[in-house]
Amino acid sequence: MDFLAWSAVGQKCIEATLLTLLPSLDAAPQQLHEAMHYAVLQGGKRVRPLLAFAAGELTQANPATVAVAASAVEMIHAYSLVHDDLPCMDDDVLRRGKPTCHVQYDEPTALLVGDALQSLAFQVLAENKLHVDQSVQLKMVRLLAAASGSRGMAGGQAIDLESVGEVLNLEQLEFMHSHKTGAIIRAACLLGLYCGQTVTPATHASVNEFGRLIGLAFQVVDDVLDAEASTDTLGKTAGKDLEQGKPTYVSAMGLDKSKTLALQLREEAMEILTEFGDRARRLRELADFIVLRKF
Amino acid sequence: MDFLAWSAVGQKCIEATLLTLLPSLDAAPQQLHEAMHYAVLQGGKRVRPLLAFAAGELTQANPATVAVAASAVEMIHAYSLVHDDLPCMDDDVLRRGKPTCHVQYDEPTALLVGDALQSLAFQVLAENKLHVDQSVQLKMVRLLAAASGSRGMAGGQAIDLESVGEVLNLEQLEFMHSHKTGAIIRAACLLGLYCGQTVTPATHASVNEFGRLIGLAFQVVDDVLDAEASTDTLGKTAGKDLEQGKPTYVSAMGLDKSKTLALQLREEAMEILTEFGDRARRLRELADFIVLRKF
Repeated sequence: MDFLAWSAVGQKCIEATLLTLLPSLDAAPQQLHEAMHYAVLQGGKRVRPLLAFAAGELTQANPATVAVAASAVEMIHAYSLVHDDLPCMDDDVLRRGKPTCHVQYDEPTALLVGDALQSLAFQVLAENKLHVDQSVQLKMVRLLAAASGSRGMAGGQAIDLESVGEVLNLEQLEFMHSHKTGAIIRAACLLGLYCGQTVTPATHASVNEFGRLIGLAFQVVDDVLDAEASTDTLGKTAGKDLEQGKPTYVSAMGLDKSKTLALQLREEAMEILTEFGDRARRLRELADFIVLRKF
Repeated sequence: MDFLAWSAVGQKCIEATLLTLLPSLDAAPQQLHEAMHYAVLQGGKRVRPLLAFAAGELTQANPATVAVAASAVEMIHAYSLVHDDLPCMDDDVLRRGKPTCHVQYDEPTALLVGDALQSLAFQVLAENKLHVDQSVQLKMVRLLAAASGSRGMAGGQAIDLESVGEVLNLEQLEFMHSHKTGAIIRAACLLGLYCGQTVTPATHASVNEFGRLIGLAFQVVDDVLDAEASTDTLGKTAGKDLEQGKPTYVSAMGLDKSKTLALQLREEAMEILTEFGDRARRLRELADFIVLRKF
């Protein structure tokens, strides 16, 4: 199966799994549940679930199990987008070409959608059998919770807010992004990995480092795309970073050097995968996809 | 030890445990961490942790273990207050006699404080040893996640928002409150219970029902206090329910009948505890405290 076919299968699988894990639209409170579906089932590239599937191949994890763990990751991602788009945060009205959650519904509903999706992510990790060893499953809860919290994604968002209008050096930029987007990307890889056979500390470290590099590359490419693309092709409001005075790789080092950095991060990520041989095929393809998607 | 002394010990214990579980103020992002401390360490009655300690006595749970599980519950409660106080929700400026989180800091910080506290609650449940049997610990994660989400607390909040200006009958009021405040109160009791010896389905059901009754009583008393008390003695803006057109027990059945209902719920809750004999002493005292606190 080529990469496009593989990722299409993964995307379909994750959509189907999310649909079974989300609350029924018949259950009260119906509007909240409808808005949760709206926030989660808008398509998107599903990069994090795909990373989980790909990392799961290193430990021969059952894809159906990975799909559940990856759905939890995707729920955290979806909640963060809903909250980031709120008027008091980025105040964005478009997401994947459609009205953001608080525009489609209202602000209180969007706030609760994010809150409830976060709860659901942990409920999903705790109530489905993801591993014969329940200590491994508790570890998955811990990994995702740590990646979501104040020393992970939410913390990165706080650093981002503090940084508006500031000039950040590359180290500070990397610190911010390794929290804001990197933590969940690393968690996606690790959760997929842990769904399979026993994970050695060395493998954990390698996959974590792969996730770190690819997460950073993802952000650099995002900054490049935001600077280059039009609102039409991006599906969200383009050029907002510059307009809002947010520090980006492009503002810190220019377009060309940003592209070079992305390619360099890809090289480093590929080197880490060498030890895994053929089993890392999908991770390699994803690294390429993430870095080369629109260059 | 009389009830006052016992609850003072419990409150001190939970404050100390929360302090060790919250991120250090030295760690980045510092302002977010400071605001998380502000939101969690403002005192309060700590009713939910006390319920956990009291329920833990039924299964001879180690209080130090219960303190960790109860801290997770209290973090969920604290996050919900921070988000409920936001301008797009209840728009409240006072909480326990002090500025609410978004007034003391700002709205984006308060949003992230809530988000990060929710993550931390699940991290705490997953990374501390709460039971020799890890399937029991996963069950605790599941219980708290379900109680927090769209079919628990967040869902209750959504129903509450939809109900502003509506006339609810008693059944609808109970449905709303059993989600909005009841779910977390039940979870507090059950998490304390599960920290100890094996819980039979019958004991689970009894404690869950006790939590349901006492959670409802708690809300009825809250409505009575809101209608009767002044802002000064309440420590939060009084009379807001009426002003905002929110349905309450007082608006649905009047002050006197509300008080009678609270006492009746207390009676039912006490009956359930009969089977547990002396071990339920603290649960009985808490039921009294909750219902009779200001009448």
